[in-house]
Amino acid sequence: MDLEILCTNACKAKMILGKLSTGKKNSVLVAVADALCENAKDIIEANAIDVENGIKNNMSQGLVDRLKLTEARIEDMALGLKQVADLTDPIGEVTEMTKRPNGMTIGKRRVPMGVIGIIYEARPNVTSDAFGLCFKTGNAVILKGGSDAINSNKKIVEVIRKTLAANSVTEDAVQLIESTDRETTTKFMRMNKYVDLLIPRGSAGLIKATVENATIPVIETGTGNCHVFVDKSADIDMAINILINAKTQRIGVCNACESLVVHEDVLIEFLPKAVKALKEKNVEIRGDERARKVCPEINEATDEDFYTEYLDYIISVKTVKDIDEAIAHINEHNTKHSECIVTNDYNSSNKFLDEIDAACVYVNASTRFTDGFEFGFGAEIGISTQKLHARGPMGLKELTTSKYIIYGNGQIRE
Amino acid sequence: MDLEILCTNACKAKMILGKLSTGKKNSVLVAVADALCENAKDIIEANAIDVENGIKNNMSQGLVDRLKLTEARIEDMALGLKQVADLTDPIGEVTEMTKRPNGMTIGKRRVPMGVIGIIYEARPNVTSDAFGLCFKTGNAVILKGGSDAINSNKKIVEVIRKTLAANSVTEDAVQLIESTDRETTTKFMRMNKYVDLLIPRGSAGLIKATVENATIPVIETGTGNCHVFVDKSADIDMAINILINAKTQRIGVCNACESLVVHEDVLIEFLPKAVKALKEKNVEIRGDERARKVCPEINEATDEDFYTEYLDYIISVKTVKDIDEAIAHINEHNTKHSECIVTNDYNSSNKFLDEIDAACVYVNASTRFTDGFEFGFGAEIGISTQKLHARGPMGLKELTTSKYIIYGNGQIRE
Repeated sequence: MDLEILCTNACKAKMILGKLSTGKKNSVLVAVADALCENAKDIIEANAIDVENGIKNNMSQGLVDRLKLTEARIEDMALGLKQVADLTDPIGEVTEMTKRPNGMTIGKRRVPMGVIGIIYEARPNVTSDAFGLCFKTGNAVILKGGSDAINSNKKIVEVIRKTLAANSVTEDAVQLIESTDRETTTKFMRMNKYVDLLIPRGSAGLIKATVENATIPVIETGTGNCHVFVDKSADIDMAINILINAKTQRIGVCNACESLVVHEDVLIEFLPKAVKALKEKNVEIRGDERARKVCPEINEATDEDFYTEYLDYIISVKTVKDIDEAIAHINEHNTKHSECIVTNDYNSSNKFLDEIDAACVYVNASTRFTDGFEFGFGAEIGISTQKLHARGPMGLKELTTSKYIIYGNGQIRE
Repeated sequence: MDLEILCTNACKAKMILGKLSTGKKNSVLVAVADALCENAKDIIEANAIDVENGIKNNMSQGLVDRLKLTEARIEDMALGLKQVADLTDPIGEVTEMTKRPNGMTIGKRRVPMGVIGIIYEARPNVTSDAFGLCFKTGNAVILKGGSDAINSNKKIVEVIRKTLAANSVTEDAVQLIESTDRETTTKFMRMNKYVDLLIPRGSAGLIKATVENATIPVIETGTGNCHVFVDKSADIDMAINILINAKTQRIGVCNACESLVVHEDVLIEFLPKAVKALKEKNVEIRGDERARKVCPEINEATDEDFYTEYLDYIISVKTVKDIDEAIAHINEHNTKHSECIVTNDYNSSNKFLDEIDAACVYVNASTRFTDGFEFGFGAEIGISTQKLHARGPMGLKELTTSKYIIYGNGQIRE
């Protein structure tokens, strides 16, 4: 379908979606969840074509695993939609309502963003997740999924649209860009006349391409070169625990630790224990000269290593002479995602919280907590690593905007 | 100076500015205000060169007027800085602090954006205004003013930087891009590695060029094709008052009314009175067929007229059969700035507030109130007409972002 028509449809749909009651939205979300489960067989069939093509095209094992749908995974998608139905609807909330000296009453009302575009890779579960969050917040969504998942996405969107129609809600609440060529994607990124917000979800390359090409306002998500800094006053056992959790609890996620920074005063006491624990988890360690002197089994780190988000069983190690050097090193190399200090020093904890530039700054807790559910927001559409509009886990509120509503009785400006 | 160096300087400066105390920031703002007044003669001398060049280059009377600085205008600039000093500092505020079930405490702390770029036209007062708002919020600012005001801007920035140095604050809190070629501006718009937010202030053309070229996140400001809708239940005298105020109290501003929408049921009663009042203020009226039937002195409006922000003594008139048509017409033609309904009907007022898509929606009050001071926020950097991050008048808070701060005692994710 022509991109222009698709965008116009979304604009028509947003006018209707913005007026739906919370009750209606919730019952539709539950109906869509049920429909996904009822149509699981068809969805798995469509998905099998994508998986087969992926294997033919030498897709990596990890990507095939993310692409593949099973009945259990479809049940998880359905559960996700039901969880979104249970969340508080942020639309309509009025904040900061004040009476001005001239008698006008001004309030800030939370309203849907309008039309949201999501560009993502071959993860079909994002299709229903993104629909659910956008629908709950009264937004129309246009999805551009990875071409490797096109058959899965088509089927999932078909099931959602049929359910919407059966519930007398505009099907154009969700639309899929079916064309898989790059030109269409680039053209879509420039539809700022129609689309209010564009969220790329996926690799650093996808996000960079979106930022460079889009005229639609973009929220960057997800790349995470996260550090754990072990201060000289750290509880060593706690530091090991946090490091192992942040690095190895789940490898391929954006809030995983990629780099260890160690205060020189604890290098000899801490590092051998840390290396032993990391080795037990099969983590390759690449460190600077001082670290390698203490633990010769550490490989040599290049400058490039300190800028790398491995998403793998690899970690870099940097030795610093004090907290200032640690903060400077982290601010230079990080991706503004999640950073942690392990310390028992009051001033160090405050300094780290003050001076680290990142969405989430932790004292004595694992970076793995940067997540909508863990923060108590519920399902999230991504982790924003930029500073505009949203920073950190983006829940329902981050998919809304506001408008000022003003009640007067004839006021004019003098 | 090389753009890369200038951006690097700004990044170094932001680390220092983010840590300044409120007291220090306020005293520096007052010192800069005083310095502007003390150096008024030099600033006016530099400005005279710009004004002379402007006249030589056939700059319009209106633009020359905006460009020209007098002692009174410099005093106004100084007063503006002192007003910013008096505003509450938003930096450091922590909101939504909660204790999670696992014992971690999570809060959202308000922090500076970092580095802000402002691109504007030949209005030298913006130079000190933008510095003041960015400085108060702990941001480094890079200014790209109109080439027609380059001598004025250089002198103003020189005075500010000298005062910063005299107060032991990094001069790079404010930097001016002195190159006046378009290539440099376009290159600047793509410095997203260094600059966190770009705000274009000026004509629709400048804003469009910024949106199309920038990789830095942009907030669009200022274009206002604002409507006054006179509903069938309107108090006619109130409607005339609001219309005349919104249209004529100040012509060249973004919150001025550009189009009148009239319910057909009050066309005969209201329109002749409105036309008479507008004519008394020398406003040219361009209307649709039905309006021209009632008032033959109205000129014919083209379709283009309804999309036009005149910023002049011209208004368009559209007749509608009901409020639905009014809302559809406004949502189709407006620039999402400020819209007003004059009504005495409860349902109409709610419907208009609900369904109009704009930053500010008024019932029975002039659109001219869309302004930081009028809303009680104090000085503003512009009126956002987009939905991301900020919508409506942008005060100090809109120049900040947040970071999550997390206090743990060894928590790891299960």
